[in-house]
Amino acid sequence: MARDSKYDILFEPVTIGPKTLKNRFYQVPHCNGAGSEKPGMQAYNRGMKAEGGWAAVCTEYCSIHPESDDIMRVSARIWDDEDARNLSVMCDKAHEHGALAGIELWYGGPHAPCMESRHQPRGPFQIASEFEINTYPRYMDADDIRLVQRYYVDAAIRARQAGFDIVYVYGAHSYLPLQFLSPYYNKRTDAYGGSFDNRARFWRETLEKVREAVGDDCAIASRFAVDTLYGGSGVQVGTDGVRFVEHADHLVDLWDLNVGDIAEWGQDAGPSRFFPENHQKPYIEPIRAGNHTNKPVVGVGRVTSPDTMVKVIQSGQLDIIGAARPSISDPFLPRKIEEGRLDDIRECIGCNVCISRWEIGGPPLICTQNATAGEEYRRGWHPEKYSPAANADKSVLVVGAGPAGMECAMVLGKRGMSAVHLVEAAPEIGGSVNWISLLGHGDGKENLFRGTARGLGNWKHIVTYRTIQLDKLKNVEVHTGTRLSTAEVRDYGAEIVVIATGCHWARDGMNSATHEPIAGADPAADWQVTPDEVVLGTKTVGPRVLVLENEGYFMGVSVAQKLAGEGHDVTLVTQASDVGSYMEFTLEAPMMHRDLHRLGVHLYPSTMVERLDPGHVTAYNVWNPEHKEHFDVDTVVMCTGRVSDDELYRELKADPAALRAAGVENAYLIGDAAAPRMIADSIFDGHRLAREIDAPDPAIPLPFIRERRIWGEVTNKDYEDQLRG
Amino acid sequence: MARDSKYDILFEPVTIGPKTLKNRFYQVPHCNGAGSEKPGMQAYNRGMKAEGGWAAVCTEYCSIHPESDDIMRVSARIWDDEDARNLSVMCDKAHEHGALAGIELWYGGPHAPCMESRHQPRGPFQIASEFEINTYPRYMDADDIRLVQRYYVDAAIRARQAGFDIVYVYGAHSYLPLQFLSPYYNKRTDAYGGSFDNRARFWRETLEKVREAVGDDCAIASRFAVDTLYGGSGVQVGTDGVRFVEHADHLVDLWDLNVGDIAEWGQDAGPSRFFPENHQKPYIEPIRAGNHTNKPVVGVGRVTSPDTMVKVIQSGQLDIIGAARPSISDPFLPRKIEEGRLDDIRECIGCNVCISRWEIGGPPLICTQNATAGEEYRRGWHPEKYSPAANADKSVLVVGAGPAGMECAMVLGKRGMSAVHLVEAAPEIGGSVNWISLLGHGDGKENLFRGTARGLGNWKHIVTYRTIQLDKLKNVEVHTGTRLSTAEVRDYGAEIVVIATGCHWARDGMNSATHEPIAGADPAADWQVTPDEVVLGTKTVGPRVLVLENEGYFMGVSVAQKLAGEGHDVTLVTQASDVGSYMEFTLEAPMMHRDLHRLGVHLYPSTMVERLDPGHVTAYNVWNPEHKEHFDVDTVVMCTGRVSDDELYRELKADPAALRAAGVENAYLIGDAAAPRMIADSIFDGHRLAREIDAPDPAIPLPFIRERRIWGEVTNKDYEDQLRG
Repeated sequence: MARDSKYDILFEPVTIGPKTLKNRFYQVPHCNGAGSEKPGMQAYNRGMKAEGGWAAVCTEYCSIHPESDDIMRVSARIWDDEDARNLSVMCDKAHEHGALAGIELWYGGPHAPCMESRHQPRGPFQIASEFEINTYPRYMDADDIRLVQRYYVDAAIRARQAGFDIVYVYGAHSYLPLQFLSPYYNKRTDAYGGSFDNRARFWRETLEKVREAVGDDCAIASRFAVDTLYGGSGVQVGTDGVRFVEHADHLVDLWDLNVGDIAEWGQDAGPSRFFPENHQKPYIEPIRAGNHTNKPVVGVGRVTSPDTMVKVIQSGQLDIIGAARPSISDPFLPRKIEEGRLDDIRECIGCNVCISRWEIGGPPLICTQNATAGEEYRRGWHPEKYSPAANADKSVLVVGAGPAGMECAMVLGKRGMSAVHLVEAAPEIGGSVNWISLLGHGDGKENLFRGTARGLGNWKHIVTYRTIQLDKLKNVEVHTGTRLSTAEVRDYGAEIVVIATGCHWARDGMNSATHEPIAGADPAADWQVTPDEVVLGTKTVGPRVLVLENEGYFMGVSVAQKLAGEGHDVTLVTQASDVGSYMEFTLEAPMMHRDLHRLGVHLYPSTMVERLDPGHVTAYNVWNPEHKEHFDVDTVVMCTGRVSDDELYRELKADPAALRAAGVENAYLIGDAAAPRMIADSIFDGHRLAREIDAPDPAIPLPFIRERRIWGEVTNKDYEDQLRG
Repeated sequence: MARDSKYDILFEPVTIGPKTLKNRFYQVPHCNGAGSEKPGMQAYNRGMKAEGGWAAVCTEYCSIHPESDDIMRVSARIWDDEDARNLSVMCDKAHEHGALAGIELWYGGPHAPCMESRHQPRGPFQIASEFEINTYPRYMDADDIRLVQRYYVDAAIRARQAGFDIVYVYGAHSYLPLQFLSPYYNKRTDAYGGSFDNRARFWRETLEKVREAVGDDCAIASRFAVDTLYGGSGVQVGTDGVRFVEHADHLVDLWDLNVGDIAEWGQDAGPSRFFPENHQKPYIEPIRAGNHTNKPVVGVGRVTSPDTMVKVIQSGQLDIIGAARPSISDPFLPRKIEEGRLDDIRECIGCNVCISRWEIGGPPLICTQNATAGEEYRRGWHPEKYSPAANADKSVLVVGAGPAGMECAMVLGKRGMSAVHLVEAAPEIGGSVNWISLLGHGDGKENLFRGTARGLGNWKHIVTYRTIQLDKLKNVEVHTGTRLSTAEVRDYGAEIVVIATGCHWARDGMNSATHEPIAGADPAADWQVTPDEVVLGTKTVGPRVLVLENEGYFMGVSVAQKLAGEGHDVTLVTQASDVGSYMEFTLEAPMMHRDLHRLGVHLYPSTMVERLDPGHVTAYNVWNPEHKEHFDVDTVVMCTGRVSDDELYRELKADPAALRAAGVENAYLIGDAAAPRMIADSIFDGHRLAREIDAPDPAIPLPFIRERRIWGEVTNKDYEDQLRG
């Protein structure tokens, strides 16, 4: 199928200095956990996007010197020739597919705690970082400024040698060049502080020097937060934003524009819970619309719809569609538009679990929608290609069509199994996502800072994408409204059985804090409800509600937000020191805090429920159990622990003879039914089993390539050859 | 000098199964950030202790399989032959110095989130981890139990091949074997749950299998938390503690005993702020004293005094002196006792910054007292050996005898500089440590759980050690009570000048949260005081005190604790979501929370001060700035930001001609005077400059070896040879 001509505009080439982008799709710098230390992962992850049609792929932030070291977080680094060698593999991969390779040169100033290198970062002024704990920069005098500018130049030269086409001077997310520009950081009284020209000087000079060094061979880009959202204390688009673009326009070949800072960069990588598609438009559009630049502009805002992309270009907001998250969720997004396969797009849901792994520091990125993200090299997975299974003649029954079951059936179908039946007890496939995507609340009201309450509706893409894919697979049948007994599973006629029956919320209060049920918990009590019951309206919720939250991710706060939005008087009690801790990592936490404030939710952190009585809840402070709290409430939401629904699997396993007699070779347990987990991990589990259904023991994941030093004269390649067999 | 005969007992050999410890000093497993991925760091860090006289050195926890993966934290791993190869380097280093090498085989169960491997951990029962967020194990059926036991055996066999002498089955800190034993985790109703015998079965069988596999060649050890400190909900020493030791005594060659769990393992690695030396005695002593074992027992409790060590052995509490932190602080502790050089011991201060890096995940360990910790391989530093400086003929003036200055002068002295003068304005050397070590409060009262309020007195070892060392160095002169002007520094006669003049607390309220001074802040106001003024009594503190805390580490809470302990009514306000966030990483936070509760301190997290008026403070909630808080107080403690005292350096630098004319070749700025930081980092900075005083540009740290994969056919060794030149 050919592309719809209305999308032709997206495939026009764009010239950026000495280079040309083959179309308007551009993977902006984003973290993936590879850095320069995992060159294979870095190269294959970016290379996959190049193969998928992106005209440019970039590194994440790339440190230019050991005094800008962000460990525990993983950045790329171009400190020496070995780093350049490692990054050159990514350039090669990009070029193989006709894409340009970009590198984002980064110096963090006070935001680089240097816990690996133990250097001291330098900064424009000596104020401790608002993002790190107790991290101060050394004040940069004139010599220091020259020194750091030399670091940029040295790094740019190494980058060119590595094969990069686009060299960034990175000034978004509150890193060094922006620190000089912004009065929030820059309180200098010399030639580098005070007036706009003075504050812009460091950045301008650095661009001049980098351009002088590599500008004939490489396109020079700058990523610039045109509004740091601090009002007059920082950079505002209407004043310093447009001014700096005009000021430095002759020095760049490409502007990569965004908003926000580092301490709250969820304003840039906006979670779908609070930000709609193209949410940065109000800040970015004035730059081009106001004719403040003669250079191409790339920007982001989780734009996933091809029609929105066209509008963004035609309206003059942007020249180039930038993407981080949408390119993770679907590396083949451009090619699918080009080939007119819009319904095959694996649309980003804006959950930000990709980002959460960078925030945690260390783990590789994951993606809820794309189980192959980060697995391109180490597990050899391709998001669009599936090798035929060696045992493709077998038939498979997948019981349960939640995230794990849907994904497993889909991948088994794509691997050409002779027959795959996905059987679901509920009237529709989707499992818990069907009610989770109704969570939060969507009153559309302004948050106390920025963003609007939108709920988790976008998470429903998880189901939509898989429904369409399953529908296309001739060898897959989906049966809903069918609850199979153990005997029915056994006698279904399938040679392989996959149990993906999910989990349920504990009704006895069993929880991670006390490892015991909660006194007074009673499944029969109509005033005790679980999160799914709240959403589905199975039980009535009274005016005064206490949400007992022990999970630490989104469930408790989302239920509280929903109920408070509907007018309930809500109290949230958690043993943790803060609510929804994991949402710090997904960047949702600040907006959620503000929304809970706006909605008047009463928060009791470091507090654990001791007993439940009708109309009354007794709790205690975890640091002093003698200190009690008492709550008079009508309803208690039990967001304590989850319990796998694995009875079917246990019963099948208990009678191996019967299983064999029925012709079932093997039964596997996946997803929440094996152990409750995040949706991304359930999908991964279903995907993994299907990818390895023909392995010697599919229950145990195959080894993956670990990119590490191996002592002595052995190269990593020897080890990989051995592992790949 | 020979050792005092009263310490002879410490140097008796101890037989453990097929192996013999040459003396009673034993480095128990502890994390260092090397894992199996940085084999050089792992080997040289442990090897240094072997050289320093320890009879055994152990890995940190070593994962036996990808389904026990603790990334973002760094564990060792023995998943494959390459891991074993990497760990074998450590064994070689240990053996070189006559020490045994131990490996601690680890399976984390629910406490292993598997963010790198994406496997799912298995556990004895399906309850989410109390330590991780939202992490559930898969319930282990009988097959799973066999499978995991096979993982242990396979790992043990690889460990033997790598050259390990001691193989641990690790059941402390709430990992898998203890999870089976403890009713807190184990709610099973089969042969592995319920009765003591059933709960002990998994551990016993695993020991049997590991012993069967490698017990002829390796000593079998088990680390066991004899009391998890949960009362009857967990393991108690008087019941299951002694029972399990008796039960499995025939299966081990060595018991490594401790207390506590993983969620609050500061009860094991007790910070000096709350725990005295040998604080685990009440729990460990009953095991041997009660004759419950026939096997040698090793234990810990930050025992640093040789006399305590002797008592611990003679009293029958332990057979072997275990050490983690004291061995980091001084790898040569045994040899110094043996050589009768007790005053050379670099005594651990119990600050737990070593641990903080593991908790953060990713960064290598650091040590306040020992700047060479973790630097043995990558920077080639030896804690006791100092190469003569190539420019040793030069004389050096070090201005300021705080942590950075003391360390720098000491190392310069040891490197044989012709003359080193350390000049300090105050009457004594030590800088900020002199008042910081008076912080907290030492009412010795019981915390609300365990531990007693002891204050930071042990931190004074920082000064004591360096005072003694400086005193011994013939080429170093220390001058106190001498404040040098810029001209005096220039004309002092030194060819190299090092400025280490420290920092002071901001008096205008400049802080990391707003990057602005605070309205109403006034250095002249007698009701506004800085932390040092509180401790030194420079200003009077009224009955009602508000501590404004923006640091995020120990200062604000320590001042609050001190003042509340002295009877003041204390309110603590911080913009952070919790108080003293970094103390989560040093394991001090839980005890500090309880102590603040005990002392009745009023906590206002997520709150920032807006303005100060005499008698009144106005603050706001950071999530809703319209939401104000008002406090009527007598005194405000300004724990906002710190400011480098770098005037001397700036003035010297401003007139390079004068500097040259005076014969000063170079002036360097180190420690808090360059940028405020943690004490450990100030000491490192002073040490680093002295180690590299003869480098081409001593101001910029030399490159260090980075253990990473290098793409292609290059080995890491090629790169290292090149770097070492």
